[in-house]
Amino acid sequence: MKVGIVGIGHGKFGNRSDATVQELAFEPFKLAIDDAKNLRRENIDALVVGSVPEYHMQRSLPGVVAEYVGMNPKSTWLTEAACASGSAAIRTAYMAIKSGMHDIVAVIGVQKMRELSTAEILALMGRVGDVQWESIFGTTFPGYYALYANRHMFEFGTTREQIGLVALKNHYYGSMNPNAFFQKEITMEKVLRSDDVAYPLKVFDCCANADGAACIIMANETNTKKYTDTPIWFEGLGSASAEMSVLRRPNLVEIPSAIEAAKQAYKQAKVKPSDIQVAEVHDCFTIAEIMAYENLGFCPKGKGGKFIEEKQSYIGGKTPVNVDGGLKAKGHPVGATGVSMATEIVKQLRGDAGKRQVSGAEIGLTHNVGGIGQYTFVHILKR
Amino acid sequence: MKVGIVGIGHGKFGNRSDATVQELAFEPFKLAIDDAKNLRRENIDALVVGSVPEYHMQRSLPGVVAEYVGMNPKSTWLTEAACASGSAAIRTAYMAIKSGMHDIVAVIGVQKMRELSTAEILALMGRVGDVQWESIFGTTFPGYYALYANRHMFEFGTTREQIGLVALKNHYYGSMNPNAFFQKEITMEKVLRSDDVAYPLKVFDCCANADGAACIIMANETNTKKYTDTPIWFEGLGSASAEMSVLRRPNLVEIPSAIEAAKQAYKQAKVKPSDIQVAEVHDCFTIAEIMAYENLGFCPKGKGGKFIEEKQSYIGGKTPVNVDGGLKAKGHPVGATGVSMATEIVKQLRGDAGKRQVSGAEIGLTHNVGGIGQYTFVHILKR
Repeated sequence: MKVGIVGIGHGKFGNRSDATVQELAFEPFKLAIDDAKNLRRENIDALVVGSVPEYHMQRSLPGVVAEYVGMNPKSTWLTEAACASGSAAIRTAYMAIKSGMHDIVAVIGVQKMRELSTAEILALMGRVGDVQWESIFGTTFPGYYALYANRHMFEFGTTREQIGLVALKNHYYGSMNPNAFFQKEITMEKVLRSDDVAYPLKVFDCCANADGAACIIMANETNTKKYTDTPIWFEGLGSASAEMSVLRRPNLVEIPSAIEAAKQAYKQAKVKPSDIQVAEVHDCFTIAEIMAYENLGFCPKGKGGKFIEEKQSYIGGKTPVNVDGGLKAKGHPVGATGVSMATEIVKQLRGDAGKRQVSGAEIGLTHNVGGIGQYTFVHILKR
Repeated sequence: MKVGIVGIGHGKFGNRSDATVQELAFEPFKLAIDDAKNLRRENIDALVVGSVPEYHMQRSLPGVVAEYVGMNPKSTWLTEAACASGSAAIRTAYMAIKSGMHDIVAVIGVQKMRELSTAEILALMGRVGDVQWESIFGTTFPGYYALYANRHMFEFGTTREQIGLVALKNHYYGSMNPNAFFQKEITMEKVLRSDDVAYPLKVFDCCANADGAACIIMANETNTKKYTDTPIWFEGLGSASAEMSVLRRPNLVEIPSAIEAAKQAYKQAKVKPSDIQVAEVHDCFTIAEIMAYENLGFCPKGKGGKFIEEKQSYIGGKTPVNVDGGLKAKGHPVGATGVSMATEIVKQLRGDAGKRQVSGAEIGLTHNVGGIGQYTFVHILKR
């Protein structure tokens, strides 16, 4: 029995002080129901919320979201896997449907990141790293990814400019995405002259904390065919974990959980990296996208810098990546990100992506990393 | 295909400043592996953590737990449904196995509640209620349950003493449970003379915040038979939600999500309330256990006070309830509670419960409520 997607919705990412967390969640939920064909809220069996609850005044989100979107008394739960919480939610929804426990499940990824100050949230997010041995001494996420960047430059000769090209590409595509936080193109000069965050990473190498929500409605095979004329199917799902502490990682130039999760997903979907026609990858920092090219097998290890330099991740290249702007331009409402990725792949595979359409795309992939790779979820979708 | 339990483990609940959250998680995980027959850690496919992450210094627990117990690079995720997070974890593990995505899954419920002060945690827990309209004005959980207690007394003539009898029973059984936070019997005088918390609830009507962890290892039918000689099977699972705000509840004498979840579980298991021979229910406050008797159909609506007065929830009565001491005597490490309930039912159905054994028990039930009933999960197990 296959599991498909019948509806998608995406809210505006950015400064959303206009909306409570439940209001944010409602926007894409409503859009996703309207996007499906003749689907009514009553047809949905269960609601999974992907979020890191602790950044909100309101805690235990499934309750407040389920009530506000009108899903009571249906089953609901939240999944958390740091920045991959949205993809963890999709995975549990897939299992819920595949097991026969539920027929139609809504997945809402939602996050307000801006109720807290940047300093507060940076400190809280740092605690996704190892508290006992690292974050208590001051590690934060830009610092972790700076370690990766330095090591990648040292081992493979990746240049500062190559890393910056990721920002240029993603802001270029972000300029075509009305839901993106940032919709302006940038120049290399702007990247290199931006303030240092953690050497060699600068402001324009970092994605921004954003408020936002996205929704997909998933269904079993029969209901997928019933509730949409343009079904998109889950063909492969991978999920893996890795050491909390960078101290215990075998090296600092790859994310082991991403390599393992990709292997699982490719195997289940019976495809190889070169079959992927469009991908959404976790570019929380520019260096992360370069590692993703390599970990997903889009290019050989150490060649990620060259891959972007040759524009292979642009539309027209080998594997277009983050053609909706990625986390870099969309912003990164952590729980929403994985679900946002899925909505973009669905648009691409339906041929509905407008100016940023990858022509003829039939197979797409999402790659959602939690923390510094404690978790990676890879999903392969086909039309 | 049936889903069974092959191993259980339970750590000591209470003040556990001796252990980090990952050390707490390891204790029952090790016990559960040893409890199964010839099971090795390598045989386990995935790890689900049930927890409310925000009460810990360390956030995003699956990563730190997976690494510490040696599960990398296997799939892991966290589920949160407030105080029902442990049962939500069990439900997603059930779906993971039933869907064929995983064959053997470890579920660890783990929580440290005592890294924060009582005042801090009371305020944080209050935010599981509706923040926009309630907790921001000062509502806390004892206050919510005091509303239930007052209304139950008003509508049904339930007496203060009947409510207190729940505490007497649960501390009586807690005295036989070496993992309980409190292992001393108490008297009605002690209950009634204890300090007021929220009228009519007193200190001895409230469960205590505790640190603790519990683990069950679940498997598909083939592996359940392979890895244990005393399989216990999941026969029915129910999950439902209800309004966040007490203001929007139809009444204050029942938990609508509990009634709905129980209905689903009884239907799937093809049993009725009178078939349940031993139950673990969510007695976060004494009044909650009285409502649970009614919501689960152990006695008619409004007769919960009489049910305990007649000792029908003692061993020897109609439906023995919380014969391990319940949340009341064990303490309530929120993420661990639902998993702890499952371990007790497994012990009972195996006939391994020693002094507190319900003789000949073959069918047991767990009832785990999140918040003020925003979520309820009911699981029915058979030997």
